[in-house]
Amino acid sequence: MEATYAALCKHGYASLRMRDIAAESSKSKATLHYHYESKQNLLYALLDYLTDSFAEQVETLEGETPAEQILALVDIYLEPAADDSLPEFRTALLEIKAQGPYDDRFRAELAEFDRMLRGRIRSLIEDGQDEGVFRPDVDPDETAEFIVTALNGAQTRHVAVDHPLERTRGALETYVRRELLVADADETGERFE
Amino acid sequence: MEATYAALCKHGYASLRMRDIAAESSKSKATLHYHYESKQNLLYALLDYLTDSFAEQVETLEGETPAEQILALVDIYLEPAADDSLPEFRTALLEIKAQGPYDDRFRAELAEFDRMLRGRIRSLIEDGQDEGVFRPDVDPDETAEFIVTALNGAQTRHVAVDHPLERTRGALETYVRRELLVADADETGERFE
Repeated sequence: MEATYAALCKHGYASLRMRDIAAESSKSKATLHYHYESKQNLLYALLDYLTDSFAEQVETLEGETPAEQILALVDIYLEPAADDSLPEFRTALLEIKAQGPYDDRFRAELAEFDRMLRGRIRSLIEDGQDEGVFRPDVDPDETAEFIVTALNGAQTRHVAVDHPLERTRGALETYVRRELLVADADETGERFE
Repeated sequence: MEATYAALCKHGYASLRMRDIAAESSKSKATLHYHYESKQNLLYALLDYLTDSFAEQVETLEGETPAEQILALVDIYLEPAADDSLPEFRTALLEIKAQGPYDDRFRAELAEFDRMLRGRIRSLIEDGQDEGVFRPDVDPDETAEFIVTALNGAQTRHVAVDHPLERTRGALETYVRRELLVADADETGERFE
C-alpha cells in the first residue's frame, strides 16, 4: 500500500503503471501481478486501506466537546499529517474521483469513504444534541452531509485553483459555532474555542 | 466553442484530440489548428467562454429577495439547463480541475470562474445586509467563499459517488435561512420560501 501510494503521488493516476508501483516496493512486478493482477486492483486496495485507516484515526478525536471533535476531524481530513507528497496525493485523488462514473469499483470505494465520513460526523452531531449543547432542531443527517460536501469542495478548490484549506477550516468553525451550538452554549461551561 | 464542448463531453478530457473537435464542427482540423494551434488552446477558450456566459446568466437573477436570488444562482450552478451531456461535462470539468497544479492556463481560467462566482455571491450577501434582511454580523467574504466551496463539493461528490445535487440544494437553503436571514425576517414581509 505504501508503494502504491508513493507511485501514485509520483506519477499521477493517468500515467501510473504496475512497474512504477514495483519500483517503490520490495516486491517484484511479477509478484505484484500475481497478487493483484492489475494496477486498478492495487488502487482499489489502496482506497480501501485509506478508508480503514481514516476511520480508525477519527474513532477517538481530540477535544472535550462534540464541537471541538468535529473540528478535530476536519483538521485530520484537510491536513492529515506532515507528508511531503500530500499535494500530489490530493491531485491524484481528484483524478480518481473523476473516474467515478466510468469505474464501478472506484465509485464503490469512494462511496464507502463518503459514508464512513458522513456517519462519523452525524454521530458527533447526535452526541452534541444528546448533551444539549447542539440545537435540537438541526437535522443531523443534512448537516453531516453538508459538512462532507464542504470538505470535498475544499479539496477540489485547493487542487484546482490553489484555494487555501485554512479558509474552509475557518468557515467551518463559524458554521459549527453559529449553526450547531445552542445560543447559550458559551454560558453553560461547554465553551467552544 | 459548441464543437469543443460537444467533443469534450463525448471523449472526456484525457483522450480528447483536435480531430474529435473538428468532427463536431463545420470547420476543418486545419482551420482549427490555424486559429487555435492545439486542443489545449481550444479548452482554455471554452473555459473563458463558459465563465463569461455564466457571469451574464447570473447578472440578473429570479427572486424578489437576495436570499431567493442566492438560491436562484445555486440552481443555475447545480442544474444549468436541460442538457443531455451535462453529466459528461461535469466529469470532464473535474478532470480539468485535477490538471490545475500542472497547467497554469487551466488554473488561471478556473480561478477566474471561481472569483466571478464568489464576487457575485458576496454582492448578493451585501445587498441583503444593506436591506437589513441579512444579519449584519455575517462576514460576506467568508460566507461567499463557503458557498462556493459547497458548490464545488456538490459537483465533486455528484461525479465521484453519485451524490444527489438536490441534497446540497436543500442544505444550502437551510444554510441561507438560518445563517444569513435575520431572525425576524419572516415577520418583516421579507418572507423567504
